[in-house]
Amino acid sequence: MTPDAIDNVVELFATLPTIGRKTARRLAFHLVRQPSDVVRRFADAIVTMRENVRECSQCCTFTDHETCHICASPKRDQSIICVVESPSDVLAIERTNEYRGLYHVLHGTLNPLDNIGPDDIRLRELMRRLGSVDELILALNPNVEGEVTSHYIARQVSPLGITVSRIARGIPMGSDLEFADDATLARAIEGRTIV
Amino acid sequence: MTPDAIDNVVELFATLPTIGRKTARRLAFHLVRQPSDVVRRFADAIVTMRENVRECSQCCTFTDHETCHICASPKRDQSIICVVESPSDVLAIERTNEYRGLYHVLHGTLNPLDNIGPDDIRLRELMRRLGSVDELILALNPNVEGEVTSHYIARQVSPLGITVSRIARGIPMGSDLEFADDATLARAIEGRTIV
Repeated sequence: MTPDAIDNVVELFATLPTIGRKTARRLAFHLVRQPSDVVRRFADAIVTMRENVRECSQCCTFTDHETCHICASPKRDQSIICVVESPSDVLAIERTNEYRGLYHVLHGTLNPLDNIGPDDIRLRELMRRLGSVDELILALNPNVEGEVTSHYIARQVSPLGITVSRIARGIPMGSDLEFADDATLARAIEGRTIV
Repeated sequence: MTPDAIDNVVELFATLPTIGRKTARRLAFHLVRQPSDVVRRFADAIVTMRENVRECSQCCTFTDHETCHICASPKRDQSIICVVESPSDVLAIERTNEYRGLYHVLHGTLNPLDNIGPDDIRLRELMRRLGSVDELILALNPNVEGEVTSHYIARQVSPLGITVSRIARGIPMGSDLEFADDATLARAIEGRTIV
């Protein structure tokens, strides 16, 4: 029905996360209407990104240098590492301007159902960095995989005499206690702090 | 914060319809994790599509030939043209297997607020095709721009002795009368048919 060249692009767009077939077609139809040089620039940017971006040799976040600007900065506290699931979590925490330590990006979580074990995420890279570290802050997403991974890391790291902490789980700022789910509310009570 | 090469791709994805900045970042992060050849294939498919796809010389839908397979088919009724806004509308109507005539894709609708006039959509191309046509079916979207464009076309075409019809607006199949909006319900009553 549609030209193969369009169908091809639709198929490829539909492989991307959050993009269904309808959106994929909409994106393809949009691009086919753009000037040739705009489309070329788009294609080039994607290839350039893939060729130039690698994982930081220290923390495994995405960077276009050997080490990322956070690991390379002398201003960051080298004794604390915050462990996150993905590079976008680093961005989210950096935006708070609250944290001055280093990061470690696992690029995933343990997930036995999907056959993702310790060797499939950047756990070995984390263990290698613990030499001069005093505290490890676990900031994984509060879901089953995040919990499993946090427990696993805590069990590996605690014997080394390193403090292992976790970010607080509780009621989000600005939200209504009445609408919090039971698990969140239970965690919020459990994790209460003295004022 | 993120490497420029990623930011570039995020900016470009964010220019696409339905893609916000968060989704754009997610797509970029997904692509940077894919194997190099997958990303290259993606980029190539986009460029190939843009280079090979053009508008059908008859009906202006997207095609990789001089004329699309519908206009080129001897089986289609050459005396009816269904006017739609975009190539995806052609696909939607073809899926019904109800319609055996030809199409004409306007690639837009009249929109004085956005400065889109008769010369900015494929109206001239439509007028040029009316020689042996008996009926023009207007199948534009039922919104203000669609109505304005339908009225404009009807005014231009009616003097030529061509029947101009519009697809029915009414209660969607499987939906509930109770939840229909007033305008739809009013149209459904107005457009009632004798059983």
